[in-house]
Amino acid sequence: MEHIQVSLIMGSISDWETMKKAAQVLDEFGVSYEKKVVSAHRTPDLMFDHAEKARERGIKVIIAGAGGAAHLPGMVAAKTTLPVIGVPIKSRVLSGIDSLYSIVQMPGGVPVMTMAIGDSGATNAALSAVRILALENSNLHEKLIAFTEKQGRIAEESSHDLI
Amino acid sequence: MEHIQVSLIMGSISDWETMKKAAQVLDEFGVSYEKKVVSAHRTPDLMFDHAEKARERGIKVIIAGAGGAAHLPGMVAAKTTLPVIGVPIKSRVLSGIDSLYSIVQMPGGVPVMTMAIGDSGATNAALSAVRILALENSNLHEKLIAFTEKQGRIAEESSHDLI
Amino acid sequence: MEHIQVSLIMGSISDWETMKKAAQVLDEFGVSYEKKVVSAHRTPDLMFDHAEKARERGIKVIIAGAGGAAHLPGMVAAKTTLPVIGVPIKSRVLSGIDSLYSIVQMPGGVPVMTMAIGDSGATNAALSAVRILALENSNLHEKLIAFTEKQGRIAEESSHDLI
Amino acid sequence: MEHIQVSLIMGSISDWETMKKAAQVLDEFGVSYEKKVVSAHRTPDLMFDHAEKARERGIKVIIAGAGGAAHLPGMVAAKTTLPVIGVPIKSRVLSGIDSLYSIVQMPGGVPVMTMAIGDSGATNAALSAVRILALENSNLHEKLIAFTEKQGRIAEESSHDLI
Amino acid sequence: MEHIQVSLIMGSISDWETMKKAAQVLDEFGVSYEKKVVSAHRTPDLMFDHAEKARERGIKVIIAGAGGAAHLPGMVAAKTTLPVIGVPIKSRVLSGIDSLYSIVQMPGGVPVMTMAIGDSGATNAALSAVRILALENSNLHEKLIAFTEKQGRIAEESSHDLI
Amino acid sequence: MEHIQVSLIMGSISDWETMKKAAQVLDEFGVSYEKKVVSAHRTPDLMFDHAEKARERGIKVIIAGAGGAAHLPGMVAAKTTLPVIGVPIKSRVLSGIDSLYSIVQMPGGVPVMTMAIGDSGATNAALSAVRILALENSNLHEKLIAFTEKQGRIAEESSHDLI
Amino acid sequence: MEHIQVSLIMGSISDWETMKKAAQVLDEFGVSYEKKVVSAHRTPDLMFDHAEKARERGIKVIIAGAGGAAHLPGMVAAKTTLPVIGVPIKSRVLSGIDSLYSIVQMPGGVPVMTMAIGDSGATNAALSAVRILALENSNLHEKLIAFTEKQGRIAEESSHDLI
Amino acid sequence: MEHIQVSLIMGSISDWETMKKAAQVLDEFGVSYEKKVVSAHRTPDLMFDHAEKARERGIKVIIAGAGGAAHLPGMVAAKTTLPVIGVPIKSRVLSGIDSLYSIVQMPGGVPVMTMAIGDSGATNAALSAVRILALENSNLHEKLIAFTEKQGRIAEESSHDLI
Repeated sequence: MEHIQVSLIMGSISDWETMKKAAQVLDEFGVSYEKKVVSAHRTPDLMFDHAEKARERGIKVIIAGAGGAAHLPGMVAAKTTLPVIGVPIKSRVLSGIDSLYSIVQMPGGVPVMTMAIGDSGATNAALSAVRILALENSNLHEKLIAFTEKQGRIAEESSHDLI
Repeated sequence: MEHIQVSLIMGSISDWETMKKAAQVLDEFGVSYEKKVVSAHRTPDLMFDHAEKARERGIKVIIAGAGGAAHLPGMVAAKTTLPVIGVPIKSRVLSGIDSLYSIVQMPGGVPVMTMAIGDSGATNAALSAVRILALENSNLHEKLIAFTEKQGRIAEESSHDLI
Repeated sequence: MEHIQVSLIMGSISDWETMKKAAQVLDEFGVSYEKKVVSAHRTPDLMFDHAEKARERGIKVIIAGAGGAAHLPGMVAAKTTLPVIGVPIKSRVLSGIDSLYSIVQMPGGVPVMTMAIGDSGATNAALSAVRILALENSNLHEKLIAFTEKQGRIAEESSHDLI
Repeated sequence: MEHIQVSLIMGSISDWETMKKAAQVLDEFGVSYEKKVVSAHRTPDLMFDHAEKARERGIKVIIAGAGGAAHLPGMVAAKTTLPVIGVPIKSRVLSGIDSLYSIVQMPGGVPVMTMAIGDSGATNAALSAVRILALENSNLHEKLIAFTEKQGRIAEESSHDLI
Repeated sequence: MEHIQVSLIMGSISDWETMKKAAQVLDEFGVSYEKKVVSAHRTPDLMFDHAEKARERGIKVIIAGAGGAAHLPGMVAAKTTLPVIGVPIKSRVLSGIDSLYSIVQMPGGVPVMTMAIGDSGATNAALSAVRILALENSNLHEKLIAFTEKQGRIAEESSHDLI
Repeated sequence: MEHIQVSLIMGSISDWETMKKAAQVLDEFGVSYEKKVVSAHRTPDLMFDHAEKARERGIKVIIAGAGGAAHLPGMVAAKTTLPVIGVPIKSRVLSGIDSLYSIVQMPGGVPVMTMAIGDSGATNAALSAVRILALENSNLHEKLIAFTEKQGRIAEESSHDLI
Repeated sequence: MEHIQVSLIMGSISDWETMKKAAQVLDEFGVSYEKKVVSAHRTPDLMFDHAEKARERGIKVIIAGAGGAAHLPGMVAAKTTLPVIGVPIKSRVLSGIDSLYSIVQMPGGVPVMTMAIGDSGATNAALSAVRILALENSNLHEKLIAFTEKQGRIAEESSHDLI
Repeated sequence: MEHIQVSLIMGSISDWETMKKAAQVLDEFGVSYEKKVVSAHRTPDLMFDHAEKARERGIKVIIAGAGGAAHLPGMVAAKTTLPVIGVPIKSRVLSGIDSLYSIVQMPGGVPVMTMAIGDSGATNAALSAVRILALENSNLHEKLIAFTEKQGRIAEESSHDLI
């Protein structure tokens, strides 16, 4: 049985609309993952427990999406030595600027790797995880090359639709 | 022996420059307090422990100052039912806008009461704590009235210096 | 007969859409409150009168919502020694950034405790008031604990809906 | 004896550094004025009294400078029917963006005429007052024309210094 | 026959949606006005001509609305000694922040009195013009007092609708 | 056979909605152009190749539209000595502020000439290209004059619709 | 005798500190230019005159620097059919964000090509002018290539200083 | 002989002041790295070459620092399948907001993992690289645990300096 390699967590069920873009990429690359609502503010103990045990459970990368005063990625990074990728969810009031600042402006010592606000960020969080996993997985690396070639081809061909 | 009523915590020793404005106000009003560096990111377990035990230790109000991706006030609020007042520290790069958004934009359910960025915020955090404590302490209330009258008088008299 | 403990005021009838989130929380916790339109700009004398008499009427906490050049919370704080909680209403043009700055950036000496912009802010204003009142009310404190546990449980269980 | 025509008020003695730019312009144009610290937050009753009596005292225009959560111009406008000109003081933390939003984003019904942040704003507040007073004062109008011509000449001649 | 007292100009026909709020107030107060599209960028000569002749045509106040790189109010102010009131139109992309900065940040020497972004700003531009005109018109002043009382009464009575 | 004079490129097919405003202007002025999707991130080699060969292919001006972390205009400018005009596409999350900063804040040495965010920017990019080409083309210059006169006339006549 | 090819204008003598970076580049490339203070607000007629006559005087490109409510580039663009390049000067209060928005957000129909805020912008304004002039000047084009190669070499060699 | 594992690149020699914070962390952890100025705009071909060959040279992680219109991290990510970490350099004019947006707002498909603006970001970029490398290096993992414990201890002990 294959280990779960990526832990995909989010602060609220409403973040799933965005975070499923990450899940789709992981599915596409055949990377095993779990998905969970883990709220820094509403389930703080669960969050600590989840972060603390992630490494020993075989997780390699944690992807954490959160919006507003988005504390989840930073707090998880404080409780694990795994690479943590943060996705700022587009917030209703401030378009995710609050989420972005809350995630990216971490103090030196506790790193969170931050992606773009919203869907692109979720997609790229998964692709970053794939790039990390591909360092030791040549099969995954080949898929990355194919993915990159394909998206280039699609971009190039889209010129035909400029009408 | 008098109980400690206010717990004055901050994410880093460098926040003290700002947070001592709060300490000065508490001193001025004769409110007992403790002061501590409690880092959400560097001492997460200490932070949870501190927040969790604050009420049973007799603390009435927690004042938490933090800068950048300022997670301390929000995480403390998640681990206590006491009133939590957050002070956004002026950050070097973004002037404290990042601190402000990280503290004020809390999701519904876990409240942090946020003050102005920097020194004024620290001063007012202490004054807010005093206002809360004065609800059940007429002596403190009288001091508040005197304080308010005095600052009005000083403001009014400063017109003489418009030269 | 029970006293009114919280005065829920707002600058305009159009703020009610947001501020009723605060009312719902107060209802849920069984905290007595009054609700009123008190405009800093259109009814300045009423506002001063309201703020000035709040304490002697037995009010413990004032929650004030306002948008745009939101002067209500700060002016009320200038005319009372009660704890004042400000809720920045999401404005049509600037998404409430103007409301937030007008409320949170108070000068040292006159404290307003500021919440998030919009609905979350209104919800948390009420929860902050409850936390303050619960300092001297163990019944309310038990309700707070139950509330916190329940929202944690709901968050945790929402993982099942990640499909 | 000549009436005082312009009331130059500010929220704090520290605003004088900026507001004296307005005083200098009024001096230059020979417009009579008074200058006063009137704090919305620290001397609210004085502020109301000042605003309420300004018209009957013969004041024509009120210039009000304030910084941070700058409530002075808007509150004065609520208590008088005179034209009110607001000057946002450059604040230490947010460069006066907070002052600007707090002054300019007034709700429909209570008008404040807002100037640029800082020194230029103070200068132009006085010039705006002069333009208003010059509507009924041809002497003042001639001075305005001379002022405008002179500043054009100085600008044009400054080309010689492009070395 | 009565003179036109206010010149209501705007940079584009699309600004009318906002600027008619100003027209409605002027109608309500019985102040005579003209309305015109005068584009700084598309009809620069017309603009200069309009600004230059406004005073001799008996105009007392110019209200100029513009959006984006909003140059109309400032350029008109450069070509007249009349009081000029600028209204930042809410722009599609930047919500009127660009309009606001382009209008309010005038250099010392050429004053534009700036109102809030959008509808409130247009309403208040007209009210500011009325306040200026009322300095020498007691009839208008009485209308202002009645207007102020009425809007206070409406605000106060709206409390009944908090249901 | 006439050379292609303007190369109209964009980072994604979704930018076409905006960039076709540029195409329409070029059509209106009878300026020959090509249109292509050239993605800095998805087709980097194609981009370099395109930029590198543009001059020898007879292109005079490159117009490049891009959104978000908009690297296309700057990278093209790094690989050609032709004038490069950048159009910031309105992004979904940050309204094009990210696009604007990514395009306009080029370091000294590699110039990109930046237009407004969105449709106006695309229109003006084409008009800027026409102004450049008209330096050596009196026919095009006459069209520019006619265009300018016509838009002035339309603006002026739109006053009739202020009803 | 050689014609002046570039008109380098600025709104104030204080902008020269920045704009001389443009002059230095033009000197370096041997492009003839004039330099002048032309203030949109203080010398509006001079500005119109300057813009209107630029083409017939043989000018090919106008570079206009301005700060704050920076109206110079846009107003010049309204009065000429020449390519106009705008340089936002770093303003004291808002760091040039106001200058940038006032210059870049031009409405469709009147194009200004905008550069980065401050020194880099001035440098690149001149380089953009050179790129435009080099379209019909192979000597200038060769200098551009040499310039580009040289700055690449310097960048590459600077790695040796990473100590 | 040990391979170089991290490629530390930056757009300009002036970024070294910030990026050496990353070098210090890598030194502290004993991770081998190279350091280089690679400018997206001034040495575009070198950049492509560097990115393209990084993987085959045995590099595991690329850390790229850049300021202003910061295109380096995104363009490198477009030319490699390695994990790329971007560090927004604090820019002189916009404090690094431009750098941040240019790096973080990447489109879906080409991921850059972004750190905080300035020194903290450089420090955390290196720590993120260490976390990635530690996935397959237990020695490095032990150092991470020791590092984390040490910084917690230092934070906790700093409370003694609150005087």
